[in-house]
Amino acid sequence: MPKAALIMGSKSDWPALEGCVKVLRAFGVEVEVHVASAHRTPEKVAEFADHARENGFEVIIAAAGKAAHLAGVIAGHTTLPVIGIPMKSSLMDGLDSLLSTVQMPTGIPVATVAVGGGDNAAYLTAQILSIKYPELADRLAQHRAQMAASIEADDAAINASL
Amino acid sequence: MPKAALIMGSKSDWPALEGCVKVLRAFGVEVEVHVASAHRTPEKVAEFADHARENGFEVIIAAAGKAAHLAGVIAGHTTLPVIGIPMKSSLMDGLDSLLSTVQMPTGIPVATVAVGGGDNAAYLTAQILSIKYPELADRLAQHRAQMAASIEADDAAINASL
Amino acid sequence: MPKAALIMGSKSDWPALEGCVKVLRAFGVEVEVHVASAHRTPEKVAEFADHARENGFEVIIAAAGKAAHLAGVIAGHTTLPVIGIPMKSSLMDGLDSLLSTVQMPTGIPVATVAVGGGDNAAYLTAQILSIKYPELADRLAQHRAQMAASIEADDAAINASL
Amino acid sequence: MPKAALIMGSKSDWPALEGCVKVLRAFGVEVEVHVASAHRTPEKVAEFADHARENGFEVIIAAAGKAAHLAGVIAGHTTLPVIGIPMKSSLMDGLDSLLSTVQMPTGIPVATVAVGGGDNAAYLTAQILSIKYPELADRLAQHRAQMAASIEADDAAINASL
Amino acid sequence: MPKAALIMGSKSDWPALEGCVKVLRAFGVEVEVHVASAHRTPEKVAEFADHARENGFEVIIAAAGKAAHLAGVIAGHTTLPVIGIPMKSSLMDGLDSLLSTVQMPTGIPVATVAVGGGDNAAYLTAQILSIKYPELADRLAQHRAQMAASIEADDAAINASL
Amino acid sequence: MPKAALIMGSKSDWPALEGCVKVLRAFGVEVEVHVASAHRTPEKVAEFADHARENGFEVIIAAAGKAAHLAGVIAGHTTLPVIGIPMKSSLMDGLDSLLSTVQMPTGIPVATVAVGGGDNAAYLTAQILSIKYPELADRLAQHRAQMAASIEADDAAINASL
Amino acid sequence: MPKAALIMGSKSDWPALEGCVKVLRAFGVEVEVHVASAHRTPEKVAEFADHARENGFEVIIAAAGKAAHLAGVIAGHTTLPVIGIPMKSSLMDGLDSLLSTVQMPTGIPVATVAVGGGDNAAYLTAQILSIKYPELADRLAQHRAQMAASIEADDAAINASL
Amino acid sequence: MPKAALIMGSKSDWPALEGCVKVLRAFGVEVEVHVASAHRTPEKVAEFADHARENGFEVIIAAAGKAAHLAGVIAGHTTLPVIGIPMKSSLMDGLDSLLSTVQMPTGIPVATVAVGGGDNAAYLTAQILSIKYPELADRLAQHRAQMAASIEADDAAINASL
Repeated sequence: MPKAALIMGSKSDWPALEGCVKVLRAFGVEVEVHVASAHRTPEKVAEFADHARENGFEVIIAAAGKAAHLAGVIAGHTTLPVIGIPMKSSLMDGLDSLLSTVQMPTGIPVATVAVGGGDNAAYLTAQILSIKYPELADRLAQHRAQMAASIEADDAAINASL
Repeated sequence: MPKAALIMGSKSDWPALEGCVKVLRAFGVEVEVHVASAHRTPEKVAEFADHARENGFEVIIAAAGKAAHLAGVIAGHTTLPVIGIPMKSSLMDGLDSLLSTVQMPTGIPVATVAVGGGDNAAYLTAQILSIKYPELADRLAQHRAQMAASIEADDAAINASL
Repeated sequence: MPKAALIMGSKSDWPALEGCVKVLRAFGVEVEVHVASAHRTPEKVAEFADHARENGFEVIIAAAGKAAHLAGVIAGHTTLPVIGIPMKSSLMDGLDSLLSTVQMPTGIPVATVAVGGGDNAAYLTAQILSIKYPELADRLAQHRAQMAASIEADDAAINASL
Repeated sequence: MPKAALIMGSKSDWPALEGCVKVLRAFGVEVEVHVASAHRTPEKVAEFADHARENGFEVIIAAAGKAAHLAGVIAGHTTLPVIGIPMKSSLMDGLDSLLSTVQMPTGIPVATVAVGGGDNAAYLTAQILSIKYPELADRLAQHRAQMAASIEADDAAINASL
Repeated sequence: MPKAALIMGSKSDWPALEGCVKVLRAFGVEVEVHVASAHRTPEKVAEFADHARENGFEVIIAAAGKAAHLAGVIAGHTTLPVIGIPMKSSLMDGLDSLLSTVQMPTGIPVATVAVGGGDNAAYLTAQILSIKYPELADRLAQHRAQMAASIEADDAAINASL
Repeated sequence: MPKAALIMGSKSDWPALEGCVKVLRAFGVEVEVHVASAHRTPEKVAEFADHARENGFEVIIAAAGKAAHLAGVIAGHTTLPVIGIPMKSSLMDGLDSLLSTVQMPTGIPVATVAVGGGDNAAYLTAQILSIKYPELADRLAQHRAQMAASIEADDAAINASL
Repeated sequence: MPKAALIMGSKSDWPALEGCVKVLRAFGVEVEVHVASAHRTPEKVAEFADHARENGFEVIIAAAGKAAHLAGVIAGHTTLPVIGIPMKSSLMDGLDSLLSTVQMPTGIPVATVAVGGGDNAAYLTAQILSIKYPELADRLAQHRAQMAASIEADDAAINASL
Repeated sequence: MPKAALIMGSKSDWPALEGCVKVLRAFGVEVEVHVASAHRTPEKVAEFADHARENGFEVIIAAAGKAAHLAGVIAGHTTLPVIGIPMKSSLMDGLDSLLSTVQMPTGIPVATVAVGGGDNAAYLTAQILSIKYPELADRLAQHRAQMAASIEADDAAINASL
C-alpha cells in the first residue's frame, strides 16, 4: 500500500485539509498527518523530511499560508516529490502563500497546486503514485468518468429547469 | 529507462526549455519533445495526452505562457502526473501564465513550478520517477550534494575576496 | 431566429448566468445552455465547438473561473466569435479568471467581458448579431434609450431627496 | 465588402497596430483608420461612433493605453460590436489598460482582447463578420489550418535539431 | 458662494457619497448632484461638462467604479479642475477603478483621491476653492484643529483605559 | 502672477520633472523648485508647508517614489491644494508610489495624478488656478485646441501613409 | 526595565494592537501607547520621535494603514529602531499599507512586519532588546519552547481525532 | 565591537549587497558574510543560526529572492533580531520575495526592509545596535546630518541651474 504524508503548518489549516485525507484514503493511499511548522518546530520538520524516504513515504504534501515556507523547507530535506498547497491567507486571498510556495530556486522544486487546493494535492499524489501502482491508474480513470458523468447530470438538470 | 514528454506551446519557448531536456537526460530520463498548441493544434494535444500512458510516458511536462492552457488541457486528457511550467510573458512577468497554470479545478491538478522553471520541471520529474526507479533517488542525492558543495565554494570565494 | 450557446464550466456558475439567458431571450435570440468542462469533459466541449457553426450557432458564450480555460478551448475548435466571461473566483476576485480568459495567443481570440459579466456577454452577443439581423439593432437602440431614461429617473430621485 | 474601423488613441500606438490592418486586409475587410482621443478630441469620437452604423461600419476596433477609455466611450455611442485593445503601458505592463477596457458596466460591453492584441482584434473582427459573410468563415478555416501546419513545422524543426 | 458639482456614475454610489455633500455644505460650498453615466448618457455628461464653467461651477467631482471613465470623460470636456473618486468595486477592492481614474493622458489630468474617498473629494474641493475664497482657508484651519483635538482625545481615552 | 511650488524628494527625480516646470511657466505660473525629503529633511518640509500659504503659494506639487510620503506629509502641514506625483519606482513600475500617494486618510487629501505624471501636475495646477485667474482658463482652452489639432494632424499623417 | 512606544495612526487600530501591548508586558517591556497621526497631528509625532531616545525609549512601534506614512515619518525623526505594522485596509487587504511602510528610501529604514502583525512587532521588539537585556533572550527561548510544545499538542490532537 | 552576519541565498546576490557590508563597516560593525541556502544547505543555515547568539552575533541579515525563505528559516533557529532583504526577482520586481519575507507567522518575526534594500538593512542594524552601543547613536546622527546636507546641496544645485 502506497504511503504519503500530509504536513500542515498550523492546526487551523485542518478543516480545509480533511478533504485531502479523504481523497487519499478513497484511493487506497495510506496517509500520515502531522502539524509541524517550518519556523516553530524546524528540527521536527527537518527530521521528518530527512528520513521520509527511508520510512516508506513516497509523496509529501505540505500546506501552509502567508510566507508559506513549509513545502520549500521540506523539499530542501528530501528528494521525494513534495506537493505544496498554498493556504488562503488574509492578503489578496493567498497570493502571498502561492508565490512563497511556487517560486522555488533551481534544483529544489515544489509541485504547487491552487490556493486551498487540498483535494487536488491528493489527486496529484494519486497520479504520481499511479506510475508505480497500476491499480491507481484504474481508480483515477474511474474518478474521471464519475466527474464527467456528474457534469452530464448537471447539464441535464439545468436544461430540465429551463 | 523512464520516459517523459516535454510539450511546449510555441517554438519561441524552446531556448528557455533546453535546460529542461539537458537535466532530464543527465538523470537518464528519455524525453520526447513536441511543439503543440492547446488552441492551434488541439486535436494533436488531445491525441498525445489520451495515449501517453499506454505509449510508455510516465510524466508529461507542459510549458506555455499568457492564458497558459496547455498543461491544463493535457491534464484533462490523462491521469499521468502533469507538470506545468508558466512561461514568462509580457504581463507582469508571467503572473498571468502562473495563475492560468496553477488555479486548476478539483480533480484535474497540474503540478506547477515557478515562472520559467524549466529546469525545476526536470528535477521534479526525476523526483517523481524516483519513487519507482531507485537509481534516480541516488542521482538526486548526488545532485543535492553537488549543489551544497557549490554553495560552499561560493561562500569561500566571497570570503576570499573580502 | 439567431441562435447562440452558453457553456458554463460548472453548475455552480448558473445563478450568476441566468441573467445572460434572460437578456438573450429578451432580444429574441435563441440560446442553448450547457454545462461542460474543458478539463472534465474535454471531448464534449471539442465536439460541441467543432460542429457549432454547422449546427446553426452564430455566437458561443463560455463562462469559467480560476484557470478559466473553457472559452479558449472552445475558441480553438471553432471560428465563430467566442465570448469569454471570467467568473469571480476566490483569488483576487477573479483576476486569475480574467487573465486566463483574455490573454489568448495570436490567431485564437476570445472576446472577453468583465469579471462576472454575464449580462454583458448577452448584450455583446446581440450587438454582434445585429450586423446580420437589423431588428436587433433597433432593440439595442431601445435598450440604450431605456438605460438613459433609468439614469435620468435616478438623477431625479436623488435630487428629490436632497 | 465588409467594413471595419480601427481607432487609436495616440499616433504612438500605430506601430503596434499595423499588423491589425494587415490581417483585416488579408481577410478582405475594408478598414478605415483614425487617430482620435476620448479626452483630447471627444466630439470627434462621439461623432464617429454615433454615425458608424449608418456609415456602413460593422465592427469598431479601439486601441488605447493607461486609463484606456476610448473603447468604452465609443461603445457608449454605438450598438455596433466594439473590440477593445488594451495597449501596453508603463504600469504593470498594461494591467491598467486592460482593467480600464474590460471592466465595463452592464449594457455597454467592450469585447476585450489581450494587452497589445492588435492582431487578435483583427481575427476577432473576421470571426464576427463571418456570421454574415460566409467567405470569411472559409478564410478563417484556412488560416487555422496554416497555423496548425506552422506548429507542425516547428515541431519537426526542433526534433530535427535534437 | 462657491459652487461645485458631484456627478456619480450610478445611483448605487449615492450612499457612499452622501458624506461628500455634507462636507461640502459644512464648508459653505453649494453643490449640485447628478447621476450621469459616461456610457449610458454620454451626451448629458458632455453637455454638463462643456458648460460647467459658464454655469458657475468651479470644481467638478466625479465618482465611478470599475472601468471608471466618468471623471476622465468630464475632464475631456472642461478645463475646470476635476476630482475623481474611484468607487470600490468587486475586483481587488477598486484597484480597477483607481487605475481607470488616475492614469490619465498628458494634458487631461484628473485629481484623484483614494478609493471610496468621497469625503476627501469634498475636502480637496474646499482646499482648491480656498485659493479664491479666503474664508474657506479659515474653515479648513479650524477643521484641522478639530481633527487634531479628536486625535488627542482618542489618545487620552486609550491611555485612560490602559 | 500666480505662484506654485514643486517639491521633489530626490534630485534624481528632476529629469522627469523638468517638463512640469516648463508647462507651468508656459502658463505664466511662477514656480519655486525644491529638493526636500519627508524623511531626510523633515523639518525643512514642515517649515515650507507650514508657511506656504502666507508666502503666497497657491498650489504645492510634490513628487516622490516608493513609500512616497512627501505629498502626504506636506498635505498635513497646509490647507493649500497639494498635488502628488507618484514617481516610477523599481517595484511594479510605481504601483507602490501610487498607493502611498493616493490612499490618504479622511481630511488630508492629496490630488494624485498618474505615475510619472509631472506634466499633468502642471496642467492640473493651471486648472486649479484658473478658477481665480481667468486668463488661465483661456490659455487652457487654447492648449486643448492645440492638442486636438495635433491629434487631427496625426490622423492625417497616418491616413496619408496608408 | 526596557521601554518601548507603540504609536497608532487611528484609535480604530487599537483592537488589533492590544495583543502587541500584552506581549510586550509579558516580556517585561514597559510600553507607552499613543494615538498620533502623521497627517493630523504631525507636530506631535515629530516632537515625540525627536526626543524618544533621550526620553528613554529604545524601540518605537508604529501602526498605520492605507498610505501608511506614520512609521516612516517617525523614522525620519529618530535613529532608534522603528518597527512598522502595516494595518489591514480596504484595498487589497493592506497591500497599500505594506508597500507604504516597507519601501523606505536609503538611510531611513523601517523594520516592517506582516500586515496586521501587531504581536510580531512585540516579539521583534523583545528580540531587539534581547541584545542588551540578556533576560529577554531567556524569555524568548522559553516562548519558542512553548510554541513548539503547542504545535506538538496540536499534532497529537489531530492524530487522536483521525 | 558589535558583530553582525550577512547571509545571502546565492552568490549572485553579492553585487547588490556589497553596499550593505560597506555601510556596516563604516559604522564600525564587524560583519561575517556567508553564502548559504535555506534549501540547498539547510543544515548549514540551521547550524549557523542555532549558535549565532553564543558566537557573539547580535543581528543577522538575510537576503534572498523569489520564494525567499532564508530570513524566515534563520528566524526559526534564533531569537536574535533577523533582518530580511527581499532581493529583486524576475516576477513583479520582487513582490514575491517581499511577501515571502515579510508575511511571517506570529512569534517568528522578520524585520523586513524594502526590495533590494541592502544598505537599509545595514542602517537598521546600526540603529538596533545603537540601543546598546551609544557611539553608534552618535554616528547615526552624523549620518542623518550628512544626508540632510546632501539634500540641501541638491536643492541648491537645481536652483542654480534654473
